[in-house]
Amino acid sequence: MSIHNLEDTIIALATPPGVGAISVIRLSGPHSIQAADSVFSGKIRLIDAHTHTIHYGNVIDDCDIVDDVLVSVFKAPNSYTGEDCIEISSHGSPLISQKLISVILNNYDVRLAEPGEFTKRAFLNGKMDLTQAEAVADLINSRTSISLRGFRDQLDGLLSSKVSFLRKGLIDISSFIELELDFAEEDIEFVQRTHLIAKIDKILSEIENLLGSYSFGKIIRDGINIAIVGEPNVGKSSLLNYLLKESRAIVSEIPGTTRDTIREEVSIDGFLFRLYDTAGLRTSEDLIEKEGIERSREAVRKSDLVLFVGDVNVGFSSMIEKDLTELNSTAEIVKVLNKIDLGIKDSYSEDFRISAVIGIGIFELLNGIKKLAIQNSSYTEKSALVTNVRHYDCLKKAKENLLNAKNTATSNLSGEFLASDLRATETALVEILGEVTTEEILNNIFSKFCIGK
Amino acid sequence: MSIHNLEDTIIALATPPGVGAISVIRLSGPHSIQAADSVFSGKIRLIDAHTHTIHYGNVIDDCDIVDDVLVSVFKAPNSYTGEDCIEISSHGSPLISQKLISVILNNYDVRLAEPGEFTKRAFLNGKMDLTQAEAVADLINSRTSISLRGFRDQLDGLLSSKVSFLRKGLIDISSFIELELDFAEEDIEFVQRTHLIAKIDKILSEIENLLGSYSFGKIIRDGINIAIVGEPNVGKSSLLNYLLKESRAIVSEIPGTTRDTIREEVSIDGFLFRLYDTAGLRTSEDLIEKEGIERSREAVRKSDLVLFVGDVNVGFSSMIEKDLTELNSTAEIVKVLNKIDLGIKDSYSEDFRISAVIGIGIFELLNGIKKLAIQNSSYTEKSALVTNVRHYDCLKKAKENLLNAKNTATSNLSGEFLASDLRATETALVEILGEVTTEEILNNIFSKFCIGK
Repeated sequence: MSIHNLEDTIIALATPPGVGAISVIRLSGPHSIQAADSVFSGKIRLIDAHTHTIHYGNVIDDCDIVDDVLVSVFKAPNSYTGEDCIEISSHGSPLISQKLISVILNNYDVRLAEPGEFTKRAFLNGKMDLTQAEAVADLINSRTSISLRGFRDQLDGLLSSKVSFLRKGLIDISSFIELELDFAEEDIEFVQRTHLIAKIDKILSEIENLLGSYSFGKIIRDGINIAIVGEPNVGKSSLLNYLLKESRAIVSEIPGTTRDTIREEVSIDGFLFRLYDTAGLRTSEDLIEKEGIERSREAVRKSDLVLFVGDVNVGFSSMIEKDLTELNSTAEIVKVLNKIDLGIKDSYSEDFRISAVIGIGIFELLNGIKKLAIQNSSYTEKSALVTNVRHYDCLKKAKENLLNAKNTATSNLSGEFLASDLRATETALVEILGEVTTEEILNNIFSKFCIGK
Repeated sequence: MSIHNLEDTIIALATPPGVGAISVIRLSGPHSIQAADSVFSGKIRLIDAHTHTIHYGNVIDDCDIVDDVLVSVFKAPNSYTGEDCIEISSHGSPLISQKLISVILNNYDVRLAEPGEFTKRAFLNGKMDLTQAEAVADLINSRTSISLRGFRDQLDGLLSSKVSFLRKGLIDISSFIELELDFAEEDIEFVQRTHLIAKIDKILSEIENLLGSYSFGKIIRDGINIAIVGEPNVGKSSLLNYLLKESRAIVSEIPGTTRDTIREEVSIDGFLFRLYDTAGLRTSEDLIEKEGIERSREAVRKSDLVLFVGDVNVGFSSMIEKDLTELNSTAEIVKVLNKIDLGIKDSYSEDFRISAVIGIGIFELLNGIKKLAIQNSSYTEKSALVTNVRHYDCLKKAKENLLNAKNTATSNLSGEFLASDLRATETALVEILGEVTTEEILNNIFSKFCIGK
């Protein structure tokens, strides 16, 4: 058995679990069609069917009809996985899906698919590169329109083509260097070093652009964490409630995740904002309070942006301001003066003035938050985007090696060193696409998929 | 627009909501294929595709790819609904499904389907009769293997053929009567009255068999309600816990239903048992106790079977026994003597002796419960089964009219009366199959379906 088990035929439920009109079971592998035939009774045998055709019939177990189904036949290489594939569409009951799968498992040498195994096979069979395979899981888990768009672009190969383009540039440079090495004794310089360094700089700046897009890519993947802090009674909860009300759509919780009582998620213009209502930040003797405070400090620590709320009659607590800077030195701190319906004093410096009770200034605040959150990103529509820490790490490695190459070229060191640096750079880029990967990397990627994908 | 809106093209998500590998959106109606074409970009136009073929391509909105999809084309009458149908299989994300549906709704004159509308159309277009359409919803909501089997048989037409067979018998009789009426002046008797009555009796007994199957059909649909009653500390909760442990599989709760703290559901040999742990049955002054008692009395009232538990050292409370008979005169009362590990006294009469703590006698009790629950049913494998109160009511009406017919025949009344009684009987039977139904009946049936079915 090979390390990737491509000879196995695998089966899994492909549609979300639960009750619906229809459910789909998917098979892939060399014996998918035979396995389906072994339980299917229709007008023709599936093995005689053309690819991309649908066949009505019954799945039979021990002379009993398990369900009447539609079977779709896909013949290699024209399928999602690039292998022979079968999709069985049945009535949408968990009991029926379960029964269908077990009948097939009992009748034929088929095994349950591991998480992500269908997409892993699509990758191994060359139907998509690794960035595209990774985009599949991210796409189906997307919870806002912006992240949907970002992962859709990745699945469509925007990042892949960018990386391939950079790789091609590297190969161009390398080929000159290798040529020089071949003619080393003649001491010919095929390209001027200054010319070469210019070429390297161009690629370097493109890699840096990609690395820069990661701040936006992370927002796309994880959303923006916002901690709302301030003295008691400055209106933190009212502000949270008003933001919830104002946001276009409340993002529904993923089933199974524990609902943190102080956390709310909202989608603003397609961006996912995670709002944390905090209690005090100073330690307390009271055990229950202590836990609340620790949670609040944690919320500030991991926030990308802090809404620091002050009361128009009291201003901003300098103690809290000090705590904020200590807890999180990178988060943007936005000062929000609340309760301006009670009058305005000019003695405080603030970024936004609002009244969370009667709803003044909330629109401006929302827009401000959004702009602040995405200001540092070099993202423009339809440009390649790094959303994944694996890609980010590979690009960082590529950048380091390319910087080495530049130094080597600048200091006029041997072409051997330069060639080696350029090769290392290329390897790092190629790793993004998955042309060189270890089983461990693959398992790490695909084990995070759901079963059936 | 006709009352059934069959000219509309309808759309809905067909797979369960949630995240999965794939989701399927379904369209049905005269413009399904054009509607799909209006947003689909593939190798060929779907309108040019053969029926039962699958096409890979992109759904496009405003030059953006919404998702890459597989589109299945079904041409009338060879589809689930009997109309032109399209199934769009996309990545399994709720956001994507939502987006795909809204893109199609924006691009073409299509509307969202009502609950059960696809199956309603299958019925209206003659793809299935009404009992089969009703079985579809029951099938996908089945929670045990026995109910799955029962509704599968109904979907396969077991009940329909039985009812059609009875109807044919009625028509045979009627045609003789009608013939006699045609020759009324000649006073010819084409069939002897005794012969006729024998024929009516035969049909009557078959209808009675069907009516009799409803006790089992109700079990298939609703499961068996069991109240566990007894004095405090006789071990009711231990018994409940042991039953839960022993049962093959705990039936999972349907999402969204409120979990009653004292109710547990178990599946024993494919039957659904709903176990109610009760508190006392006598009224109390304490408000909270009062509510518990009212719930317990309600549990006894609606139970099909009562497990009346006694302690081996105390026996059975005669007061509770009296209460039980008053609260529910039809439920089977099973006396269970618990704690037999503490010794056995012969002074009590009981049906089962158990020890819920060390697990003696539980297997026998489980088997006993199952036998008692299904003893009164005339069900045998592969016989037609009434699971639906609508069918039951129609059969009762048929029976009443046929009894009238029999009386008319016995008392040698005019053939006119006899013919009328027979016609009324037939109408009642035909109503089961849905050949004669009102829009109100149909709406009542299909509104209980999920959307997309």
